[in-house]
Amino acid sequence: MNKFMETAYKEALDGVCKKHGGPFGAVMVKDNKIIAKGHNEVLLRHDPTAHAETVTIRKACKKLNTIDLSGCVLYVTSKPCPMCKGAIQWSRIKDVVFSGDYEDAKKLDFDDLLFSDGFDEEDDHWSQVDQEHFDKLINAFESCRKEIKY
Amino acid sequence: MNKFMETAYKEALDGVCKKHGGPFGAVMVKDNKIIAKGHNEVLLRHDPTAHAETVTIRKACKKLNTIDLSGCVLYVTSKPCPMCKGAIQWSRIKDVVFSGDYEDAKKLDFDDLLFSDGFDEEDDHWSQVDQEHFDKLINAFESCRKEIKY
Repeated sequence: MNKFMETAYKEALDGVCKKHGGPFGAVMVKDNKIIAKGHNEVLLRHDPTAHAETVTIRKACKKLNTIDLSGCVLYVTSKPCPMCKGAIQWSRIKDVVFSGDYEDAKKLDFDDLLFSDGFDEEDDHWSQVDQEHFDKLINAFESCRKEIKY
Repeated sequence: MNKFMETAYKEALDGVCKKHGGPFGAVMVKDNKIIAKGHNEVLLRHDPTAHAETVTIRKACKKLNTIDLSGCVLYVTSKPCPMCKGAIQWSRIKDVVFSGDYEDAKKLDFDDLLFSDGFDEEDDHWSQVDQEHFDKLINAFESCRKEIKY
């Protein structure tokens, strides 16, 4: 398994165990080193914008003291939603690697919010790895779904 | 001028004066009362996701202790960007009233990030008011542009 994606999955699972929100994790990599990681904190913070991607972007920006993450690579357990795609573009990140895709997210019943037909097109700088691991994460989430009101 | 939009403009101008970021303000209204307001804080927080809309959504969610802002109306000085459109949808806000549109935003040289062709379609629940006031706000921003590195 890709080592950065493995860390992203650990983050996601950590978030599920803590009941912070949905089963999503992300890792920001610069010069082949992790500079920030995060998971979905929507429920923890009562913040519908606190997706793994935005949480991680904010941490990386604070760490580097910049709003420009050009040259960074974002690893995320699931393909970024439209909001996160916007956040990725505003922070000047070009390269994104994801694991689960929108079809996988449908299993979580979050698909009603993967709206916007025009948003689903592939980005040349986006790639997919380790998709088979996403089902395990979904299972972990589903097992405590009743306790996670999301 | 619409009273809620007037407050949004005051917020935007406040942000410009404080050099917190771009000239954008927002107000969240529920049952005809303001429950939260905010302005762009991208520079203040080193957070590229801290647009007026997301800042205001976060404040409103914290105040109401929810991630569901159904029934609220978001007033914003400029038409929400793709990221903010996503945030609006995740927080279940249907009704949005904006003042300046993407053509106005072009004057600020932020148009390179109003990407995503598929995102530009009109939403039935979005409406526009007080567009003529947006130019004044741009002028205020431009007058201190050299001090606002954005």
